[in-house]
Amino acid sequence: MAKVQPRTLSGFMELLPARQVQFDRMAAIIRESFSLYAYTPLDTPLIEASEILLAKGGGETEKQIYRFTKGDSDLSLRFDLTVPLAKYVALNYARLAFPFRRFQIGKVYRGERAQRGRFREFYQADIDVIGDGQLDISNDAEIPAIIYRTFTALGLRRFQIRVNNRKILNGFYAMLGLTAQAGAIMRTVDKLEKIGEKSVRELLTAPEIGLTEDQAAEILKFISIKGCNADVLAALEGYRNRHPMFDEGLDELSAVAKNLAAFGVPETHFVLDLTIARGLDYYTGTVYETTMLDHPEIGSICSGGRYDNLAEYYTDKQLPGVGISIGLTRLFFVLEDQGYLNEQLNTAPADVLILPMTEDMGPAIELATQLRSTALRTQIYGEQKKFKQKMNYADKLGVPFVIFLGDDEIRQNKVSLKNMRTGEQETLTLTEATIQMIEALGAAGDTPIQDKGE
Amino acid sequence: MAKVQPRTLSGFMELLPARQVQFDRMAAIIRESFSLYAYTPLDTPLIEASEILLAKGGGETEKQIYRFTKGDSDLSLRFDLTVPLAKYVALNYARLAFPFRRFQIGKVYRGERAQRGRFREFYQADIDVIGDGQLDISNDAEIPAIIYRTFTALGLRRFQIRVNNRKILNGFYAMLGLTAQAGAIMRTVDKLEKIGEKSVRELLTAPEIGLTEDQAAEILKFISIKGCNADVLAALEGYRNRHPMFDEGLDELSAVAKNLAAFGVPETHFVLDLTIARGLDYYTGTVYETTMLDHPEIGSICSGGRYDNLAEYYTDKQLPGVGISIGLTRLFFVLEDQGYLNEQLNTAPADVLILPMTEDMGPAIELATQLRSTALRTQIYGEQKKFKQKMNYADKLGVPFVIFLGDDEIRQNKVSLKNMRTGEQETLTLTEATIQMIEALGAAGDTPIQDKGE
Repeated sequence: MAKVQPRTLSGFMELLPARQVQFDRMAAIIRESFSLYAYTPLDTPLIEASEILLAKGGGETEKQIYRFTKGDSDLSLRFDLTVPLAKYVALNYARLAFPFRRFQIGKVYRGERAQRGRFREFYQADIDVIGDGQLDISNDAEIPAIIYRTFTALGLRRFQIRVNNRKILNGFYAMLGLTAQAGAIMRTVDKLEKIGEKSVRELLTAPEIGLTEDQAAEILKFISIKGCNADVLAALEGYRNRHPMFDEGLDELSAVAKNLAAFGVPETHFVLDLTIARGLDYYTGTVYETTMLDHPEIGSICSGGRYDNLAEYYTDKQLPGVGISIGLTRLFFVLEDQGYLNEQLNTAPADVLILPMTEDMGPAIELATQLRSTALRTQIYGEQKKFKQKMNYADKLGVPFVIFLGDDEIRQNKVSLKNMRTGEQETLTLTEATIQMIEALGAAGDTPIQDKGE
Repeated sequence: MAKVQPRTLSGFMELLPARQVQFDRMAAIIRESFSLYAYTPLDTPLIEASEILLAKGGGETEKQIYRFTKGDSDLSLRFDLTVPLAKYVALNYARLAFPFRRFQIGKVYRGERAQRGRFREFYQADIDVIGDGQLDISNDAEIPAIIYRTFTALGLRRFQIRVNNRKILNGFYAMLGLTAQAGAIMRTVDKLEKIGEKSVRELLTAPEIGLTEDQAAEILKFISIKGCNADVLAALEGYRNRHPMFDEGLDELSAVAKNLAAFGVPETHFVLDLTIARGLDYYTGTVYETTMLDHPEIGSICSGGRYDNLAEYYTDKQLPGVGISIGLTRLFFVLEDQGYLNEQLNTAPADVLILPMTEDMGPAIELATQLRSTALRTQIYGEQKKFKQKMNYADKLGVPFVIFLGDDEIRQNKVSLKNMRTGEQETLTLTEATIQMIEALGAAGDTPIQDKGE
């Protein structure tokens, strides 16, 4: 028969078993962490009517979208988890309790040009809190606390959550009479780390934006306010009472910073940074970015912010919210690429592999049933192969333990347990063997990331 | 602004929060159960090249498939988890250890006509064991053991796994010289429960199949062999030595039945049933179906079997396997529809909701951080609302516990804990409150299904 060459589409991550276990462990820790903060899990369809997904319309997104027809339906694959959330909340408004706190970990699709580290199918892990009419600023402080807890639980140490407030930026540009140019200015200032201060100054004074040298200097001075959070807030107080929007933003940012100690986030991991604006017009207040201190070149690995109105394309209800999103597939790729994955993590499908040395499989099956009742992941090797092949299999799987069960062991009501890491082998009672395995497995590190920095 | 009417596509399940928690709990138990038997998790793309997914070609599937182009790529959404597995194994053959045991829980897509209980996007939960060249029959016995354990863990009691072997059927028809008609006969016999014996006899003797009355009687006699498993096997022994394929099938079925006691599956839940053939030509040996005893009309909720060659469209390697698939979305729909879902399951996003009674949120935030460190899912209600609205929110969420934290409690270093189920309220130390909550939550039933039968 003619064969079709097996392949996986470019831009679609498909992992070998051990890596998949690492990925799933990351996702599980994120899920646990989001749950601990009382977010409810949501699962919306991958496919939506195009009129729903593209209600906002236009922009880069529309070009990247996977859109097709089936029968007479115009359908699209979701490109983020925010638009489906907006639809969900508008559709189920009367049946939800507000503030509505949901997390969703799911795949999204963007037909970008395939390149290393860029994915067309990728997981996002999102949390959002949606208020009905209004939403307290305390929620904006909780989000970085959750991200801090989540990344720490994953094993990441050297990261920093950067926070700003769009009202401070918009208020500041309004003070200077530059509201009309504010968008273009912020997009330019956003490039500061990439292109440097000199190039930013040139762009700001170029005809497209058209600032005076004084205005550009004023802006560069403002966004260069740095230091510990107390210093940044003190410097910002110097601009108070010049524009109400600025003052509102400063109050919000101060409130967020104030609650962080109570939330258990150390200042080492949380910084007020006036250069953070987020490209999207969507955000209206607090904005977040998260960077890895040893790899600033990667950019933000977790971003989000406050928005005034989640579902304006579907409902007249005012639904303000605040949320953040981890690009999970990309984060995993980066961590793997940079050697952050914890190679000590047990990624074998089994904790213990039973090699029956008798023809009758009955005793091995009974043993496996007993081991599983103690939550040990147990596999019986049932194939008729030579001993060496069986051991090769155990090696290739990477199982931590092998049990040999032959006539001798069965007669003595014992098992021969081999620790595959140390190479030690002992004949033990089932209870002794079980305790030994559970202790050894419990002692192994289990965070999926091993961050060398501290 | 003109609004787009929010809607979710017909045939796409989208659950409200409490139901989503029930669904996720089901999926989590299935995942745990599959892991306990040492299957490794796999996650393949939703989208594949059409030439890959449709390598087998033809049939009902091709009409139902979601197929589209993006750029110059001809793409399709997967319609099951078996074809992606075949591609994966063929593609990664050299890097996998065989037998390769994987589970996958994921969405698949079929553009069927939308009707009640039929879904276009639905979850399948699959396990498969793939051998390299050969695969021991003991694997065929383990599969029903896993399904028994999984459904029991979900809380389901009154179900039965039905097993047969295609070689017995094919061997039997070969004995009668009816090999050419075997496919048509089996498809007809498969309808026995739906249309009754008389109609099956008429179809068998109608010109399309063209059996004699004697042949039809012989077939109906054969497939009516019933009783306990020992009786069925004894009756089948009466046909031995008439066709080698039959004998091989009988040996396999006997081996499967023999190991089941060791695997811990009671005879009440496992029955040899000669009417099971599975429509697909794909299966070559053992076949499985699973029915709910109180709802036979639902049909099989979990099906599968043994196949000779997983990936013949992609590789020359002979890769026999055995597997089974739970149609998870449909199962959930049926269980909900029939009132099986355990309404006592805690589906609130939070175990405890803190209502701060002071302006300063600091003490509430610190309390929440402490509660989360004991793994209690904790939410702070941070909105400025009236007391009644706060309690309404707690009711609507269905949280089991509320903590009031006012000036009095803060001064005494205590909390006021209200059990929302009993209505009792006490002022306690944090330790006392924590213990009380953990005990009460641990005592609540946690299987997602509550099967009334026993």
